[in-house]
Amino acid sequence: MKTKLENKYLLCPMPITIVGTMMDGKVNFINVAHIGVLNASSPHIVSIAVNKNHYSKFGIKENKSFSINIPSQKQMVEVDYVGLVSGKDVDKSDVFEVFYGDLKTAPMVKNCPLSVECKLVDIYETKTHEMFIGEVVNAYADDTCLTGGKVDLAKVDPLLFDMSGVQYWSLGSVAGKCWSEGKKLIQANK
Amino acid sequence: MKTKLENKYLLCPMPITIVGTMMDGKVNFINVAHIGVLNASSPHIVSIAVNKNHYSKFGIKENKSFSINIPSQKQMVEVDYVGLVSGKDVDKSDVFEVFYGDLKTAPMVKNCPLSVECKLVDIYETKTHEMFIGEVVNAYADDTCLTGGKVDLAKVDPLLFDMSGVQYWSLGSVAGKCWSEGKKLIQANK
Repeated sequence: MKTKLENKYLLCPMPITIVGTMMDGKVNFINVAHIGVLNASSPHIVSIAVNKNHYSKFGIKENKSFSINIPSQKQMVEVDYVGLVSGKDVDKSDVFEVFYGDLKTAPMVKNCPLSVECKLVDIYETKTHEMFIGEVVNAYADDTCLTGGKVDLAKVDPLLFDMSGVQYWSLGSVAGKCWSEGKKLIQANK
Repeated sequence: MKTKLENKYLLCPMPITIVGTMMDGKVNFINVAHIGVLNASSPHIVSIAVNKNHYSKFGIKENKSFSINIPSQKQMVEVDYVGLVSGKDVDKSDVFEVFYGDLKTAPMVKNCPLSVECKLVDIYETKTHEMFIGEVVNAYADDTCLTGGKVDLAKVDPLLFDMSGVQYWSLGSVAGKCWSEGKKLIQANK
């Protein structure tokens, strides 16, 4: 049996991210789970959607750049914190240590296993949010989360955002290979 | 130490979804992990990005509607299969049993724990993909994945897509409460 739900936000769980911006020359962070992937090819385009009330949007618009960082579970308190307080009221510049790539206005979080620096390419508006569309200029992984030179999600240990339960979840185990499991059905249909 | 990566697709893991469309009166399915959330408010707006070569885009454009379904781990073979073969060559209409809500051209997957029916509101183009922006008209949960009337992600048992490892992952356990864990830092800063 199907139940129609009041809460229509069912695309879950999404990885929670830390978005790094620069605002009047000062580093600021927010957490964002309203993210999106527009394509995987080159240029690789991603999106973050931020409520129009959020302070960070000014920094993104001012510098036309931002970073997206994938935190690990052990950063949960700090990740949640930067979403609870606004950069308008509180200086969050020292919550995380940062590093920079090519864009000097896209501060990335040193302790996050994965980080991308993004150049703003467009803004798409909805009633309540602005979706900032960014081209990934460079992607970085902490060496501690690589296995054989490739990102190992078990080592990343990401935090997954669940709007229904208002909870963060951890990652489980490998379930199967993409573009491979389905071949069983191709064989069966022959 | 940070390593700059060739593979810039680091927003992971994303839940893999099954997108249901109608094409010349026939049901079609693809799997899509390039999804996005534009806002959580009403109207709730989401996105799916589909390669311009994909057959499903015709159905979405024709009917201005589509469904997004969150499969569970036990559907992995079928989920992977609908991404391996094109509706241009293979009739995929009987891979999943469907049900309908208000939109008669947005077939939803009966065996998926979570489904939303979406009205197409816009299309945003990148070089290789089209991002279909949809308003969630209705959201449905299978009763088997509810606890106390709310979606229970442990019961959903979603499949998480990892582009780096080209693998599907399962969900782990609850790590903490959103908009709560960070209060420890607010207290500590007082």
